[in-house]
Amino acid sequence: MKRVLLKLSYDGTFYRGWQKQADLKTVQAEVEKALFVAFKKNIEVFASGRTDAGVHAIGQCVHFDIDDTVPVRKIKMILNRILPNDIEIISAKKVPNNFHARFSVKRKTYIYKIYNQQKNCFLANKVAFVKEYLDIDKMQQCAKILMGKHNFKGFCSSNTNAKDFEKTIYDISISKKKNFVYVEVTGSGFLMHMVRILVGTMVDFALNKISIEDVKMALEKQNRIFAGQTMPADGLYLKKVVY
Amino acid sequence: MKRVLLKLSYDGTFYRGWQKQADLKTVQAEVEKALFVAFKKNIEVFASGRTDAGVHAIGQCVHFDIDDTVPVRKIKMILNRILPNDIEIISAKKVPNNFHARFSVKRKTYIYKIYNQQKNCFLANKVAFVKEYLDIDKMQQCAKILMGKHNFKGFCSSNTNAKDFEKTIYDISISKKKNFVYVEVTGSGFLMHMVRILVGTMVDFALNKISIEDVKMALEKQNRIFAGQTMPADGLYLKKVVY
Repeated sequence: MKRVLLKLSYDGTFYRGWQKQADLKTVQAEVEKALFVAFKKNIEVFASGRTDAGVHAIGQCVHFDIDDTVPVRKIKMILNRILPNDIEIISAKKVPNNFHARFSVKRKTYIYKIYNQQKNCFLANKVAFVKEYLDIDKMQQCAKILMGKHNFKGFCSSNTNAKDFEKTIYDISISKKKNFVYVEVTGSGFLMHMVRILVGTMVDFALNKISIEDVKMALEKQNRIFAGQTMPADGLYLKKVVY
Repeated sequence: MKRVLLKLSYDGTFYRGWQKQADLKTVQAEVEKALFVAFKKNIEVFASGRTDAGVHAIGQCVHFDIDDTVPVRKIKMILNRILPNDIEIISAKKVPNNFHARFSVKRKTYIYKIYNQQKNCFLANKVAFVKEYLDIDKMQQCAKILMGKHNFKGFCSSNTNAKDFEKTIYDISISKKKNFVYVEVTGSGFLMHMVRILVGTMVDFALNKISIEDVKMALEKQNRIFAGQTMPADGLYLKKVVY
């Protein structure tokens, strides 16, 4: 038995998120189905974390255990042939047996893509649309307050099961390219909807819907009421997992 | 009463094509629903032609009639606010009352997008994937035979209702940019699945699956058996309609 780490990309548009749920189309179910087709065995996969319905991944990481006889260098090709077009294996490699895709995570980077115009039909489901002009200097001003080690309960969905709300945001970088605004957030870990609420807070601050005091209150009082909107799943991509 | 010509783009992924069908999600139904919401009236729209399920449009053209009191310059903005993200009005203008989006067509241009690699999850539903290397010089060689005035019954789905199979292909241009191959086809009109079979014929010829004699036979014998595969809907875009 050996442990394999897969890096994969997926377009989450057609999926009810990563995690298996009875009778729902999920990315985990597709990957496990492909492993079954390839290796005639039920193999469970463990991801770095869930992604919600409609959220995409550029570099999701998952591990699973497989017979020693299976050549790791062929796993990528075999799975890509079986998997649907919107799920793509980037790499497969052997890792130590004590490696765990979720518990070994050091940090994660998400990228949030905003199209700063009313609409573009070919970007539907792939970005969030914000039609009012976004001043990225203002967004950056808000980002500075959000970075660092905080209790992020005020930036978390009330549906969470989390008990520990303390996380560290190492970096938030915001860039603009033509009509796109990209927000890249790197942190020790993320709560439910946390990236979407962080970006919504920067957006709402840039649009003068909330003040810098509101942002500080959301952190200090750990109260969701002071933070900005939850941005739609469409613009969110899990970019990178570092172990 | 005045007649309005709309130019619109759509991502066809989520639609059962352009044309209204009971209980199915179609682009025509969405546009008519938006007109109803905007103007509180049942307004029928007439397109330059149908697009099949999953086919996209960069420049579909449709006309409808509306009260003289409605300001044409506001129609684009009003409809874009109501329509879903994957349907986008590009322009609206007044046209003479004898203009007809379908019967006044002079020529149409389609573009077919191929990603010449096994997969890319973020292009799923937006391109066709061909993993074997495509030699565009060979495709161009095949295109030369297909251009001109022919009976295209051999390049048409057997489900068609068409009676007249004679069409003129004015131009086929093929280009390559990184991993993409683009095939642009301009013609007087197109039969059911015709662009997809024309492109499939060029692809199959480039991949040595059919010979130049097969292509000639498909034209001469007007028999589908000699032509190439029907490419998937995913890569097809109605680019332009000329009146």
